[in-house]
Amino acid sequence: MSKSPSNPKGTRDFLPHILSKRNYILDIIKNNFKLFGFSEIETPALEKNSTLLGKYGNEGDRLVFKILNSGDKIKKANLKAHSENNYSDFIDSVSNKGLRYDLTVPLARFVAQHQNDLVFPFKRFQIQNVWRADRPQHGRFQEFTQCDADVIGTNSILQEIELIKLYDSVFSDLGFEDIVFKINHRSILTALAKYIGLENKLSEFVSAIDKIDKIGLDNVLKEVEHLTENNSISNLSEILSQEKNNIHHFDKLFQNILHTKKGIEELQTILEFICQSSSFKNEIRFDITLARGLNYYTGTIVEVISKSDTKIGSLGGGGRYDDLTSLFNFKNASGVGISFGLDRIYLLMEEQNLFPKHIDKSFDIIIINFGLKYLKKLYPLIDSLRKNGKKINIYPDNVKLNKQFSYANKHKVINAIIMGENEFKKNQIIIKNMVDGTQSEYLLSEVNSELF
Amino acid sequence: MSKSPSNPKGTRDFLPHILSKRNYILDIIKNNFKLFGFSEIETPALEKNSTLLGKYGNEGDRLVFKILNSGDKIKKANLKAHSENNYSDFIDSVSNKGLRYDLTVPLARFVAQHQNDLVFPFKRFQIQNVWRADRPQHGRFQEFTQCDADVIGTNSILQEIELIKLYDSVFSDLGFEDIVFKINHRSILTALAKYIGLENKLSEFVSAIDKIDKIGLDNVLKEVEHLTENNSISNLSEILSQEKNNIHHFDKLFQNILHTKKGIEELQTILEFICQSSSFKNEIRFDITLARGLNYYTGTIVEVISKSDTKIGSLGGGGRYDDLTSLFNFKNASGVGISFGLDRIYLLMEEQNLFPKHIDKSFDIIIINFGLKYLKKLYPLIDSLRKNGKKINIYPDNVKLNKQFSYANKHKVINAIIMGENEFKKNQIIIKNMVDGTQSEYLLSEVNSELF
Repeated sequence: MSKSPSNPKGTRDFLPHILSKRNYILDIIKNNFKLFGFSEIETPALEKNSTLLGKYGNEGDRLVFKILNSGDKIKKANLKAHSENNYSDFIDSVSNKGLRYDLTVPLARFVAQHQNDLVFPFKRFQIQNVWRADRPQHGRFQEFTQCDADVIGTNSILQEIELIKLYDSVFSDLGFEDIVFKINHRSILTALAKYIGLENKLSEFVSAIDKIDKIGLDNVLKEVEHLTENNSISNLSEILSQEKNNIHHFDKLFQNILHTKKGIEELQTILEFICQSSSFKNEIRFDITLARGLNYYTGTIVEVISKSDTKIGSLGGGGRYDDLTSLFNFKNASGVGISFGLDRIYLLMEEQNLFPKHIDKSFDIIIINFGLKYLKKLYPLIDSLRKNGKKINIYPDNVKLNKQFSYANKHKVINAIIMGENEFKKNQIIIKNMVDGTQSEYLLSEVNSELF
Repeated sequence: MSKSPSNPKGTRDFLPHILSKRNYILDIIKNNFKLFGFSEIETPALEKNSTLLGKYGNEGDRLVFKILNSGDKIKKANLKAHSENNYSDFIDSVSNKGLRYDLTVPLARFVAQHQNDLVFPFKRFQIQNVWRADRPQHGRFQEFTQCDADVIGTNSILQEIELIKLYDSVFSDLGFEDIVFKINHRSILTALAKYIGLENKLSEFVSAIDKIDKIGLDNVLKEVEHLTENNSISNLSEILSQEKNNIHHFDKLFQNILHTKKGIEELQTILEFICQSSSFKNEIRFDITLARGLNYYTGTIVEVISKSDTKIGSLGGGGRYDDLTSLFNFKNASGVGISFGLDRIYLLMEEQNLFPKHIDKSFDIIIINFGLKYLKKLYPLIDSLRKNGKKINIYPDNVKLNKQFSYANKHKVINAIIMGENEFKKNQIIIKNMVDGTQSEYLLSEVNSELF
């Protein structure tokens, strides 16, 4: 037995004062998901390895936590494979399940599996933990919460508009005033690659562009230079530095490149629609350097950043994917989704002091404990206050007053109810304000929840 | 790639209409936890094997899901141990983490680890999933949700009273009217064992008694008979059949048995206090046959059952444990806690039809989609309705009306907002009641959230 117990590296215990802030954020996100017509689902933490593996690339497969088969199945370990350094077959022989790595592949599995029980277009949200066997480091965890909303089964551009409005509503409700939504379209990135002659190295090109916020324009250009053999790179510098937010520029520049028009028109429709909406609080900006990795996106992509703290990275992101569910043999179901980066939103809200005061207050009223005799007389009041939504903690033991008050102060509670021998005789209580120390007497019969 | 994807056996996908009911129950439990002054915490799903193992008995250790070490660590598998059938050492060599098996051991670990950051007595609640490698069968899952409230660091009997009142409040809020809280005390069970000469076979005796609801009194007596060599068993039959709910009987019967008086007095205080409480809605009953296994309980034990469906088993249970945190070297912290059996409560609520009507309604209003031009004019109304808490789903595509109406009906939504060409010209909308088919026209400027 370890003498100083601890949780595993890369995981976190959430104490009440932290969890109440996390839940404050999650409640706002969840409420908006519902206001925009999304229904909640949950999938198990455990998924079959056949569901998980092969979806996230080799590196992703390595980072999926695998569960050891239990009971007698462990006898079937393929020791020969291990001794031949064939660890992949060895792992196959001792594990057939793993932990959810994201919420997207489980969604695709869910939609394919339950297609006959769902109503399409299917709008779902899901807020659950995911696990990755990443090396733990500052700000990167092996267990963290993802918050996703997706629509499956429609290619209507209205979904992009609704999802951006949903983003806007959440970040406004959270109190942010410095949010920018960057938007781009995969077909414009493809056109750019074609334009500079890199259509055969699209994924390398996208992954270079993707790093612009981290390593800067000059370093991105150097990376792209290594990819190309002709001189079109000189244009790229000008494009990325001067025209990166100018969609009209690219409309003209790419007019002879196939399949680009549609992407540009879609973005223009979205931008026009959003900008004309009087309720839209934040800023939206076309940005040709927005890449969001390659993975499964095929259309519009979007990312949320803070103007005041760009170092913190994106606070959320999403986009359209045309063929995700076909991984599970459910074809022709275009999807689009967004997600929220809970941990970064939390950090930025702390930085900008956006959490409401008293959010970490655990309860509203403390009852000072003089013993069961007194509590028996107080309980009808306690019951009625609780029925009216007041959170009440009765100090567990009949101990010295200063110990009880110190407990109350540590919990930042404002009101204490006191009934000692004097008050008991007179059917009275004292309500003490723990902040300014003032106190007033009331007859038991006069007290109601509005006094607090 | 599997052609028909599925979740692992023993796990569940929750579709929206199921999840909304589960969350209805959880919200009521959570709200009551807060009203009674409990603070929420969360611990990671992953725990070190050194935290998990050795706490749940050999069978429990076997049922803990172990996580395969990732990356290069897999190279260190102890193949020799495996080939010598020493699977325990083999497992040790490939796994150092597992999945949370319950919320109690993580709580003990949490309290010991964070003792300097917590305020004692520490009242926490926790609602999270746990995992057990049980053979999946009807009603038994490998992944399920536990809902626990515990107080650590006080032996005040007020906690027992508060927790039973909390139970009463939750089951009343859920709408049950047939709940009984059975209550007993470990010291009374011990006294009973002594009384019939089985003090040296206490755990076998308790585990026999524990089965009375499942196998009936006669079979329990047979099991006890196998344990004993003298004739005191004849008394037991009478006690268990005629006096099992009569605490005064045992007060007299056990008056010469050491350490029993305190337990009986505690129960009497609790019963008297609860029965005098005018707000108490359900029934509480002393029951000497209540055993709740052996595990870590040392004082009062309690269990929740339904009078109308006793087959379903207990809907919750709890008790006092004096020394749980000493597992992690945190001494002298008596604890008491209760938990709720979410899955059984769900089943019984379905059986008794206790869920509110329309609980599976995903949204309040559907907007019929005639295209972006119309939606642009409708959006200020949509924005304002959403600000007023109305859940609104805009049908994603501009398709035939009957398809949109059929979607609305499948979602059991009551109100549809329609703006076609006629209404567009007149700045009007139609509100259609999808249940009775009636519809009325309104000027856009007249519509507000109170119409719905």
